[in-house]
Amino acid sequence: MSIWALEGIGEIVAGDDLGAIIAGVGSSLADGDVLAVTSKIVSKAENRFVVAADREQAITEQTVRLVAQRGTTRIVENHLGIVSAAAGIDASNTPDGTILLLPLDPDASAAAIRAALLERLGVTVGVIITDTLGRAWREGQTDAAIGSSGVRVLDDLRGTTDANGVPLAVTAPAVGDEIAAAADLVKGKASGNPVAVIRGLSHLLDDTAPGARSLVREPEKDMFRLGTDEAYRQGFAAGSASND
Amino acid sequence: MSIWALEGIGEIVAGDDLGAIIAGVGSSLADGDVLAVTSKIVSKAENRFVVAADREQAITEQTVRLVAQRGTTRIVENHLGIVSAAAGIDASNTPDGTILLLPLDPDASAAAIRAALLERLGVTVGVIITDTLGRAWREGQTDAAIGSSGVRVLDDLRGTTDANGVPLAVTAPAVGDEIAAAADLVKGKASGNPVAVIRGLSHLLDDTAPGARSLVREPEKDMFRLGTDEAYRQGFAAGSASND
Repeated sequence: MSIWALEGIGEIVAGDDLGAIIAGVGSSLADGDVLAVTSKIVSKAENRFVVAADREQAITEQTVRLVAQRGTTRIVENHLGIVSAAAGIDASNTPDGTILLLPLDPDASAAAIRAALLERLGVTVGVIITDTLGRAWREGQTDAAIGSSGVRVLDDLRGTTDANGVPLAVTAPAVGDEIAAAADLVKGKASGNPVAVIRGLSHLLDDTAPGARSLVREPEKDMFRLGTDEAYRQGFAAGSASND
Repeated sequence: MSIWALEGIGEIVAGDDLGAIIAGVGSSLADGDVLAVTSKIVSKAENRFVVAADREQAITEQTVRLVAQRGTTRIVENHLGIVSAAAGIDASNTPDGTILLLPLDPDASAAAIRAALLERLGVTVGVIITDTLGRAWREGQTDAAIGSSGVRVLDDLRGTTDANGVPLAVTAPAVGDEIAAAADLVKGKASGNPVAVIRGLSHLLDDTAPGARSLVREPEKDMFRLGTDEAYRQGFAAGSASND
């Protein structure tokens, strides 16, 4: 498996045709590659800019559930089902006085990029839209898949067996998140390379695979909702109740 | 960056010298490489086998804090500070009637493998010990770093700036976990390749880097302890109170 950053993607501005821009620097792409695209440039192309002064209100508007709060930091579930700090709203690498919301529908954004690459370059690839997420219980952040098209994000091994014939009962690697994490190692946060190519995972390509929304755990299966009501009472009074 | 599985590592049994075995198939290794070693083979070499019939008791003994419980599934914090299902006890790819505890000190295990590779092959590499962890709020599992030596696991960018000169205030990629995740994409769960080599990350090598224990969030910084007491009362009565 090899991973490299796609060079030559300049600054993205609102209205840019991201699929065309990636295709323009994508002559090295081949069938079976997976592209990991930083959500920030998708948001920029889709004009998801908001005035920075409205940040707290924007977080509230993006929030469907407050998960935890300490001081001014709110960990919330947003409309995409993603749990993250500040609803994934991004203030780095944005023009002065602006912040960025996440793409409205990252699975659709991924599908559009994938279609553009097929049309312009004739290559069938998988596309993953990535965002940087903190984690419960662990320091630091890792990139994860918030959108995808044409690639399995959950490699469900339930029903298969290990080398000794024992069923792999609960094993379902979140390969979409693992691809996003791997791509972050070459994209970097400060280097300004928003797209990485992963070659060697063509066995994960699947036209009918569900999008990355399927990586969001359904509430009834979520074991980490204890305390939600308390968190809500303690922290969310300042927000808008109309979002819940 | 390129990643490949190291071929030729046979079945590991208690008492095996893992450093010597990896060195024996590691002629392709070079200075600056990072090795990702599945904790399962470390546990086997270190004879961390337990009789399978004692599984529930073993989980209880490995537990320092019950985080959540549903049915018979216990999500617990173990002695290493790692939050996982069943305290990381592993029943797949183990001999009949046995299960495996995690290594006692995975940072030390990583250091021993690293020292053996320097001594036997003359190469300076980083070593990461990986385990498969579920996540809060998201489906599936990803591999993460539970031990490390000679490689930074947290790439602390706080104090640096983005391409526009804006401080990257809270950005600290958990590169140890990202390396573990990337390695899982080539190791696979069912393929029996327990070691992967990552080439292209020599900038992360650091003799003085703290081990993967540093990826465990300190309790006072942990925002996801709400409900712990309730979980404890509801679910842990059947366990041993002496572990808390």
